[in-house]
Amino acid sequence: MITAQNASTQLASGSSYPLTGLGLWKVPREECANLVYTSLKLGYRLLDGAADYGNEAEAGEGLRRALNEGLVKREDVTVVSKLWNTYHAEEHVEAACRRSLQDWGVDYFDVYYIHMPIALKYVDPAVRYPPGWSYDGTPDGALELEASPYHKTWAALERLVDIGLVRNIAISNMPGGMIMDLMTYARIKPAVLQVEMHPYFAQPELLRLAQAFNIHVTAYSSFGPTSWVGISDSVVAKCEPLFTHPTVTEIAASHGVTPAQVILRWATQRGITVIPKSSSAERMKENLNNERVELSEGAIDAISKLDAGLRFANPAAAGPRLAVYA
Amino acid sequence: MITAQNASTQLASGSSYPLTGLGLWKVPREECANLVYTSLKLGYRLLDGAADYGNEAEAGEGLRRALNEGLVKREDVTVVSKLWNTYHAEEHVEAACRRSLQDWGVDYFDVYYIHMPIALKYVDPAVRYPPGWSYDGTPDGALELEASPYHKTWAALERLVDIGLVRNIAISNMPGGMIMDLMTYARIKPAVLQVEMHPYFAQPELLRLAQAFNIHVTAYSSFGPTSWVGISDSVVAKCEPLFTHPTVTEIAASHGVTPAQVILRWATQRGITVIPKSSSAERMKENLNNERVELSEGAIDAISKLDAGLRFANPAAAGPRLAVYA
Repeated sequence: MITAQNASTQLASGSSYPLTGLGLWKVPREECANLVYTSLKLGYRLLDGAADYGNEAEAGEGLRRALNEGLVKREDVTVVSKLWNTYHAEEHVEAACRRSLQDWGVDYFDVYYIHMPIALKYVDPAVRYPPGWSYDGTPDGALELEASPYHKTWAALERLVDIGLVRNIAISNMPGGMIMDLMTYARIKPAVLQVEMHPYFAQPELLRLAQAFNIHVTAYSSFGPTSWVGISDSVVAKCEPLFTHPTVTEIAASHGVTPAQVILRWATQRGITVIPKSSSAERMKENLNNERVELSEGAIDAISKLDAGLRFANPAAAGPRLAVYA
Repeated sequence: MITAQNASTQLASGSSYPLTGLGLWKVPREECANLVYTSLKLGYRLLDGAADYGNEAEAGEGLRRALNEGLVKREDVTVVSKLWNTYHAEEHVEAACRRSLQDWGVDYFDVYYIHMPIALKYVDPAVRYPPGWSYDGTPDGALELEASPYHKTWAALERLVDIGLVRNIAISNMPGGMIMDLMTYARIKPAVLQVEMHPYFAQPELLRLAQAFNIHVTAYSSFGPTSWVGISDSVVAKCEPLFTHPTVTEIAASHGVTPAQVILRWATQRGITVIPKSSSAERMKENLNNERVELSEGAIDAISKLDAGLRFANPAAAGPRLAVYA
């Protein structure tokens, strides 16, 4: 157990929130229980899930195993889920959250996100769960938008806090203007902003905005192109993998650590949470240990200079009306 | 009079809206009446003003002169104004609009924009008008945000349509995600989106989003860096002026027209309105005549390829919380 070495930040609500967690996106259902269990054994205390990942029941199974074995206590683990795009209507938010809670087998979430600022037409969970993007569930099926204003979805999330299902509410994949607007009407302010962030997409303006509003930032796709192989290959082909980029490998060599650790530490040392995933216990340990590395200011700056404004996660690919970052 | 040659588009409301207009940003107060009068004489039928430009009374003087001389009829001119950031609170919107109407000396606006999706603390017009950015009016004074949600400001604009002060309401300087959100709650949909757009900042994703939502697009800063000399010189220094860029000059030479006309026609031929300003009648005429040029598809594509994602107008420069495009 290396928990002692791993740092947490305090969210505006007072909740503790680790700087390194385990991301559950793309974790196959059949591996998910073991992966979560192993991560907790290794010292991970932040599990970043979502209804859309389709593996919350299995993640919950892994968590329960660790709880039953006395490996961790519920209050020591930050359990995260996310409201999917099809449940933005006020009347569907609580049911969607309860479904995720039931799948995880927990009675509250530490952090509950709105996954994206995109409202898609409701799909009954009895028909298909998780429902994905297209209304009919086929890869090429049409997208149907729903007229659910974000401020009403946010108010529904605030009620989840009121009734104790959720400790902190949070935002993801949101452009600055929407965050600024949200800050004008949020009764409960967003605790965390989760966005794509890596050396090729450093997002300095968004980071400054979040800091100015006292919103903690969680970076996803920390390894940049490597997270998108097989999904966005045309963009991936445009750039050198971060793991072999000379700037990264030289810093890794000079510090006697791995490129992955350098890339993660570039974020965590600046107070940004990372949620890498790996199917290997060895690499999970390596990732968690990024916090043992101490990068010089010069090294951090050198990595920040790799910024190329290269975004991989863009819903505009699914339809012109979804160009939230345009 | 060359009105016949100049095209208009029809907004969703049925109103007609010209493809080439006169922008009044940075027009000095003492030149503004003459400039507006001259533009109407030359055939301009779209006057793009704003409370913040500080010259609405003078613009109105020029318009009245043309009306009194029978040069144009009120219904032939598209008169535009914009709600400034300090008047976003529901209770200030109507008064702000009436002040602009009074300055212009008209009893309705054809299009009334929300200038930016940024709500600044109210400044009484009796204290300072227009109030600008900082709360105390000094160039280095602090910015004070106001908790006015955009959806409430929008509802106040809808009421301006209801009571007949405004024919169309419109949005400006807004990222895609906010537009998508607005479309979920707008009772009256935005008729026009006005944003920075030029060959160095072609905004193809935002254009597709606006078209998908049936929102007409008006481009500002059509000449790119040239509009920002003296304001954003560090960015201006990064690029070749568009007027001397070989791609533009070659197309201009081959068509026997000016670079300015090529740059404007690149927009208007694709149905995008432009609002260049000039203090010379000769150049105003040249700008208006951009619509006589017929560019080949290849020429339009070649200009579109100059896109460098180079944004000049970014409120983030005024403070980290204003990073609406982050």
